[in-house]
Amino acid sequence: MQNRNIEVCLSPALLHLHDFTNSIVVVIDIFRATSSICYGIENGAESIIPVATIEACESYRNSNFLLAAERNGEVVDGFDFGNSPFSYTEDKVFGKTIVLTTTNGTHAINMSRGAHKIVIGSFLNLASLCDWIKTQSNDVLLLCSGWKDKVNLEDTLFAGGVVHNLREENYHLDDAGIASEDLYIMAKDDLNNYLKKTSHSERLKKLGIEEDIKFCLNLNITKGIPVLDGERLIKMRI
Amino acid sequence: MQNRNIEVCLSPALLHLHDFTNSIVVVIDIFRATSSICYGIENGAESIIPVATIEACESYRNSNFLLAAERNGEVVDGFDFGNSPFSYTEDKVFGKTIVLTTTNGTHAINMSRGAHKIVIGSFLNLASLCDWIKTQSNDVLLLCSGWKDKVNLEDTLFAGGVVHNLREENYHLDDAGIASEDLYIMAKDDLNNYLKKTSHSERLKKLGIEEDIKFCLNLNITKGIPVLDGERLIKMRI
Repeated sequence: MQNRNIEVCLSPALLHLHDFTNSIVVVIDIFRATSSICYGIENGAESIIPVATIEACESYRNSNFLLAAERNGEVVDGFDFGNSPFSYTEDKVFGKTIVLTTTNGTHAINMSRGAHKIVIGSFLNLASLCDWIKTQSNDVLLLCSGWKDKVNLEDTLFAGGVVHNLREENYHLDDAGIASEDLYIMAKDDLNNYLKKTSHSERLKKLGIEEDIKFCLNLNITKGIPVLDGERLIKMRI
Repeated sequence: MQNRNIEVCLSPALLHLHDFTNSIVVVIDIFRATSSICYGIENGAESIIPVATIEACESYRNSNFLLAAERNGEVVDGFDFGNSPFSYTEDKVFGKTIVLTTTNGTHAINMSRGAHKIVIGSFLNLASLCDWIKTQSNDVLLLCSGWKDKVNLEDTLFAGGVVHNLREENYHLDDAGIASEDLYIMAKDDLNNYLKKTSHSERLKKLGIEEDIKFCLNLNITKGIPVLDGERLIKMRI
């Protein structure tokens, strides 16, 4: 395999610095959108439609779809649910299509349009995601959704986890990738404890979603890789 | 002292996410602009005028000023020098004013206008910079110049070094600050060796400026803190 590029984009506000036309873009929003997407797809959701605005989500009101809208960490009034992974269990989502809008994650997905392929990553599917990337030859761009464009530690750590898992491959890494991997190596034995010192974690704690956070840090409990197919995220057929 | 904010901005392209009106902004461009500015000011340069463009630099041609212009790591044709620290020795700059434009550093300085105070940081003046910050009460924004808006490791490490030196203060740190400090702790015993794995370092090596790089990683060999006063960087009177 030829030398491929693995780049890490620490914020959607830096995405314009990357040419990702021929890249696999991995969208990362650990707390909680991409974790919940992985979990929902694993639990048999037929598809998840990421939309940019609450209005776009609302426009699906008279369909058979479940409507999920989150802003600033909370479910938007009048919607079925937000982005807590516990809303994406088999009994709730099996066979269903979910229309989803979130503060950061769905925004990053939409910004990635034009990429060779857009896939969804989280600690839940880290191993299967990396195994699949190893079978591909395209460059890889790991896109951290951040928090309202600010860099956050949990997305950075996951990007580092992907880099670390691809370590034996012959690739060229940018500085953000080097930094992310070293942070991951430092934190990996106890991600939850490491993340406790972040301000983001403080904020999420105030929202009463500590159980969500713990859940989103579970390693390799799902196998599927959500991939964007037109307007919908579906389970990749491998 | 009240709880103050220390934030790290990893790229000028993220600066709009920070309200720095009441902050001390520390501009960081380790390879090599801010290192050379610290060195030049220490060696008796009367002032350094950072300008955004080569044309602006050129417009000072008929003054008594030294003209320094760097783009993509090289001295621009027709200029006295670029941003190698070895051009900022006492015999060259004592008593002189230098007009300086660089790829990243002077851009970041200009973007910081409107801050409470704009100061220049590098490993050369790390300790004296931190000692001074401890005497102030304003919030602090550590602005990494990066490489053409991309995150780089050397600026991130220095930001982490400042955070680390301020550790005993009572402050609130953002996620980029936490990440930077942890990277600094990992790298600090041998910065040069740590940075060897970066792509940026490879590029600079090709430019034949390995000696510059080594020099820019010298810790605490200067005392002065360059501060922006109107259009000019001068030595802060403490």
